[in-house]
Amino acid sequence: MNDVVELINRVQNAYARCIDSGKLEEWPDFFEENCIYKITTADNFAQGLEAGVIFANSRGMLLDRVASLREANIYERHVYRHFLGQPWIVSEDANEAKSETSFFVARIMRDGTTEVYATGRYIDVYKLNGGAPKLKERIVVCDSSRFDTLLALPL
Amino acid sequence: MNDVVELINRVQNAYARCIDSGKLEEWPDFFEENCIYKITTADNFAQGLEAGVIFANSRGMLLDRVASLREANIYERHVYRHFLGQPWIVSEDANEAKSETSFFVARIMRDGTTEVYATGRYIDVYKLNGGAPKLKERIVVCDSSRFDTLLALPL
Amino acid sequence: MNDVVELINRVQNAYARCIDSGKLEEWPDFFEENCIYKITTADNFAQGLEAGVIFANSRGMLLDRVASLREANIYERHVYRHFLGQPWIVSEDANEAKSETSFFVARIMRDGTTEVYATGRYIDVYKLNGGAPKLKERIVVCDSSRFDTLLALPL
Repeated sequence: MNDVVELINRVQNAYARCIDSGKLEEWPDFFEENCIYKITTADNFAQGLEAGVIFANSRGMLLDRVASLREANIYERHVYRHFLGQPWIVSEDANEAKSETSFFVARIMRDGTTEVYATGRYIDVYKLNGGAPKLKERIVVCDSSRFDTLLALPL
Repeated sequence: MNDVVELINRVQNAYARCIDSGKLEEWPDFFEENCIYKITTADNFAQGLEAGVIFANSRGMLLDRVASLREANIYERHVYRHFLGQPWIVSEDANEAKSETSFFVARIMRDGTTEVYATGRYIDVYKLNGGAPKLKERIVVCDSSRFDTLLALPL
Repeated sequence: MNDVVELINRVQNAYARCIDSGKLEEWPDFFEENCIYKITTADNFAQGLEAGVIFANSRGMLLDRVASLREANIYERHVYRHFLGQPWIVSEDANEAKSETSFFVARIMRDGTTEVYATGRYIDVYKLNGGAPKLKERIVVCDSSRFDTLLALPL
């Protein structure tokens, strides 16, 4: 198998486990210090609109976000379950890989209700770091343009 | 890893990307010139009933279908997001592989509604073409027998 | 690729196929003679509560369960479709592997309705048996605490 596919598969599995098990504080560790994290819609992305629903350009901003989520106590009210397709390698060299991966996230509310929360694709740039890839950029492109007000949570 | 699993994983990932990104015109390229493409239900399939909801026996028929979908302008009203399981290799030789793969397709309407659109399995015959597999036969067996009238879109 | 990931991927694919195609009688064969099979909720699991919705501690008990499901004729009324994430290897040695895998199960009723039935994770201990792994322990931890009364069916 393509080694990069395997590498990214593994790190994305860890990323999903981190969020799905509620270990939000560890989530920023999947990113480089200087990074882009953005959540946007397929419509906006297709039109080249820069604005995202969520935007961060450093790991510090991601940490801040986690802190405010904890304060707001929003996260405790529900959990996520991520499902990821195989990553599609758009390009790669020794240091960096660009990939795209379909995601599907189910949300399970405290009352037990389970629903399809979001589908879409990750458009990623990974710094490979000799086998310990971290995200230099993750643009989360959601298929739907209807957003839940809770979308501030990591996808 | 079994090389055929990897090969089919990759081509099926490309197949899903093609449809999910709306590049319908490229979809017939995943098939051999002489091919079978059929959508049917698990009930009909189990009873050996030949009739499918959709049937095509050449790449040309698939192209025709895409053309009429474009004309009817149906496709623009919603998008799909495919999720595929690992292919199960039923048999393989140097030229051909038979495989089965579970699929789950979410449909996202223009108003933002997301729903489970279809689940089922692909029953496939791939011509391997020395590493560039194409579908000789794809029977899409949907678990549900309740069909949306829009099912004419590729699965 | 990690050989154990590949091995477990393959056997879990077979496990899902077995249930999704209704071959319930073959399901206990995925387990060791002496085994634990338990279905529980994330809440109970997090609190260390031992009681599960379903509990079996031998392959014989799994066979008994299948027999009573057949008698009750429940299974015929609907089908499942499983989707599994990549297994996460928690630990492994030459004889045994511990892994965790996210699952998503859609349920398709006889009237055609399809719904998200359950999401969660398998917490597994596999005896590797020199390349033919069997489950020594499977704890099915469902994200939701709201259970359908039909949950007696295998997950």
